[in-house]
Amino acid sequence: MRRTLLPYAVLVLVFVGAIIAVLGHGKRLEEGRAAAPPAATALDAGAATPLGTLLAQIIVVVVAARLCGRLSARIGQPKVIGEIVAGILLGPSLLGWVAPAVSLSLFPSNSLGTLKLLAEVGVVLFMFVVGLELDLESLRGVAHTALVVSHASILLPYFLGVVLSLVLYRSLAPAGVPFVPFALFMGIAMSITAFPVLARILEERGLTRTPLGSTAITCAAVDDVTAWSILAIIVAIGKAQGLASSGLTVLMAASFIGLMWYVVGPAVRWIIGRGAPGRPSKNILAFVLLMLIGSALTTERIGIHALFGAFLVGVVMPREATFRAELVQRLEEVSAILFLPLFFAFTGLRTQIGLLDTAGSWLMCLAVIAVATAGKLGGSMAAARLSGMGTLDAFALGALMNTRGLVELIALNVGYELGILSPRIFAMLVLMALVTTFSTAPLLALADRLRKRRSVPVDMENAAVRPSASSRPPQS
Amino acid sequence: MRRTLLPYAVLVLVFVGAIIAVLGHGKRLEEGRAAAPPAATALDAGAATPLGTLLAQIIVVVVAARLCGRLSARIGQPKVIGEIVAGILLGPSLLGWVAPAVSLSLFPSNSLGTLKLLAEVGVVLFMFVVGLELDLESLRGVAHTALVVSHASILLPYFLGVVLSLVLYRSLAPAGVPFVPFALFMGIAMSITAFPVLARILEERGLTRTPLGSTAITCAAVDDVTAWSILAIIVAIGKAQGLASSGLTVLMAASFIGLMWYVVGPAVRWIIGRGAPGRPSKNILAFVLLMLIGSALTTERIGIHALFGAFLVGVVMPREATFRAELVQRLEEVSAILFLPLFFAFTGLRTQIGLLDTAGSWLMCLAVIAVATAGKLGGSMAAARLSGMGTLDAFALGALMNTRGLVELIALNVGYELGILSPRIFAMLVLMALVTTFSTAPLLALADRLRKRRSVPVDMENAAVRPSASSRPPQS
Repeated sequence: MRRTLLPYAVLVLVFVGAIIAVLGHGKRLEEGRAAAPPAATALDAGAATPLGTLLAQIIVVVVAARLCGRLSARIGQPKVIGEIVAGILLGPSLLGWVAPAVSLSLFPSNSLGTLKLLAEVGVVLFMFVVGLELDLESLRGVAHTALVVSHASILLPYFLGVVLSLVLYRSLAPAGVPFVPFALFMGIAMSITAFPVLARILEERGLTRTPLGSTAITCAAVDDVTAWSILAIIVAIGKAQGLASSGLTVLMAASFIGLMWYVVGPAVRWIIGRGAPGRPSKNILAFVLLMLIGSALTTERIGIHALFGAFLVGVVMPREATFRAELVQRLEEVSAILFLPLFFAFTGLRTQIGLLDTAGSWLMCLAVIAVATAGKLGGSMAAARLSGMGTLDAFALGALMNTRGLVELIALNVGYELGILSPRIFAMLVLMALVTTFSTAPLLALADRLRKRRSVPVDMENAAVRPSASSRPPQS
Repeated sequence: MRRTLLPYAVLVLVFVGAIIAVLGHGKRLEEGRAAAPPAATALDAGAATPLGTLLAQIIVVVVAARLCGRLSARIGQPKVIGEIVAGILLGPSLLGWVAPAVSLSLFPSNSLGTLKLLAEVGVVLFMFVVGLELDLESLRGVAHTALVVSHASILLPYFLGVVLSLVLYRSLAPAGVPFVPFALFMGIAMSITAFPVLARILEERGLTRTPLGSTAITCAAVDDVTAWSILAIIVAIGKAQGLASSGLTVLMAASFIGLMWYVVGPAVRWIIGRGAPGRPSKNILAFVLLMLIGSALTTERIGIHALFGAFLVGVVMPREATFRAELVQRLEEVSAILFLPLFFAFTGLRTQIGLLDTAGSWLMCLAVIAVATAGKLGGSMAAARLSGMGTLDAFALGALMNTRGLVELIALNVGYELGILSPRIFAMLVLMALVTTFSTAPLLALADRLRKRRSVPVDMENAAVRPSASSRPPQS
């Protein structure tokens, strides 16, 4: 050992000495005169770099989302409730109001562009996963009841939303927005069901394989597809100038959907199917990611939103369950942990509960919630009852369909960006999404209690309400 | 079926009719007068949104990186060569020079901030994975030879780099940068070994378990840790104003490293070890991600770079092989496909080969490459020879240590951002990284041919050069 240590020590000493000597000599050199790099950043130690700001935002946002998510799971609510609330608390409604300096240093205005972009990337990934989890094949042989219920559960709230717009338009539509897009959008906001939240709730309560559960999930799937199609049309109309241009956008969107469904889908399934199904290789993963981004880019350029393209790609992926599960694991876990909380935070930054500062605006907000619930819960319940379902089951189905969750927030942000929603109606609709999502669990419990008290013969096996102890946290 | 269809049709018609009637009525309403959303975006269909720009960049960059990566794999080179070249081709050196309009519309200047941030996020994730794959435990019982070789393989190129700075300083250092940081940085640039590229090369050639392979990987690991420590000190000096401030930064960095190593590391291993090892749960994944971001943020705020913190967290993770592999799979696959190509593209946007427009600057570039190779290849070879290795093996080891790859690019970008490197020396050093990485495979093949011709008894079993057919693409 000594035999190696000695030459080693000599070696280090000689070189370090030589380096110091050269450094000393070099100090006397004339100063360099090359052009400085253009991006030369401030050299202050500790100054917040854009990367530092982003990392700090991620930490605060993710920790807040996880804490609030746990709290809401503890009170028997889906985690998404807590995550949305965390986003709102970090915005002007609480943090910006209580500690404006902290808020400004955590979310400086020059960082919002990046935050928005990352939130959008998160939503694009999320919509891809929603598409992946949507099993359209299962809709083929489905009971007509489910179809009728699901369309009724869109039409009634949509109609009520349009009627409500008559009342709200003057005071809540931004100047310059015509009545038709505003009303069409209010209709959408009233009739959305959060397919992913619904799936998690059913899973947590062990309802997935019951008649109630499968009807609900089918209705939600039809709802999702219908609502996103209508939204795409609204976006096309909203973005385009004039009828011809919006017609062109709708036409291009329809052709793209046809292309994806009839050409790209089968081709992709053939290409991916050639390799071993199951665990996707790195090449397949890259291929899927490029498809996803390419499709999102296409719909963005067509003039409907990038998230439609992402959703479409998810839908046309091969149906092998293991393949989908592996894809979900690779793309969704990190995205659900990191990106979606950023989306909630970004939505929260836009949500100014403080704008509801008069009794009148709170009354309007209550009206929005009442109309949303009457339309969605009432509409689904009435249609289910008419098609022969028992009253309590119809009520439970209505409560499930009334869940709006994250999907509603995504749609609301689209409307906000289009300039269709003013900040005040945006805040009201966010509250509506929260309240309707929150009320699902208590309403289901109520249906269950009534059923037991009435001793009505239970027409499903597993309807007992199990408080959530799921290992798979709801992420939407 | 007709019994459901008829009421269904009636239902749809009634509601759609009613909605149209309300819309018609609402058109006559007075226009809304709420405040418009502040972020109201341009409503032109087809206008490039920030999201659209980002998606387009990702597609072009990822496709280019994968194509060039495949090409370079086909000529027996690690894929990283092609990926780096793809980045350079997309920058001002080719695309910006041949088609400036395309370049400007693909990389508009207002998109570069986000691109840079995403590239940095990619590098932070990458350094975490480098830390994960670095097995410090295996260094415990290692031969002193490896230690001597590895330090010699830093000291000689470092010394030569400092000497070379004497020549280059006046013409290539940016105005205002003193000699000492410039020379210290040139030393770093000369002495880096790309640990991950090296690991992939060894794997592809089946050398991992040979004496040559294990010596090389050990040396590279020691190199990595040493070089990053020196770089952290340089960054601390470069960023801080005055000696006291830079001393404080170094002190804080050292304390943080100590904290991570002696306190956080054991704690983390205990916390994660309590759960089942192997497949990390979603909670564990979130915990690891928060650790990673928190540590990166801490080092960024201390004044050394975020990537040191990420690297440190990777190093202190639990050693269970399955746990690490699962983490790598979840974090690295998407990152290697999406983010690292963005880093190469961003580096390429900074690399202006066109700045080497005189015979003199090409001569300087050649000198840089010659000194880098002489120092790293020569230094490692001499030390290995002196410690008793055969000449050809020592040569092969030198060739392996001369691989600089992606790790060099990361260091170069740090130097560029600090303002220590002018655009011209940056371009030269990028070329040097490319050439030294590129030359590893031919030099290894040469060593092999010489060995066969001389019929020197081969002192390892698997040294036959197998052209890469690895299913695991090199990603650095």
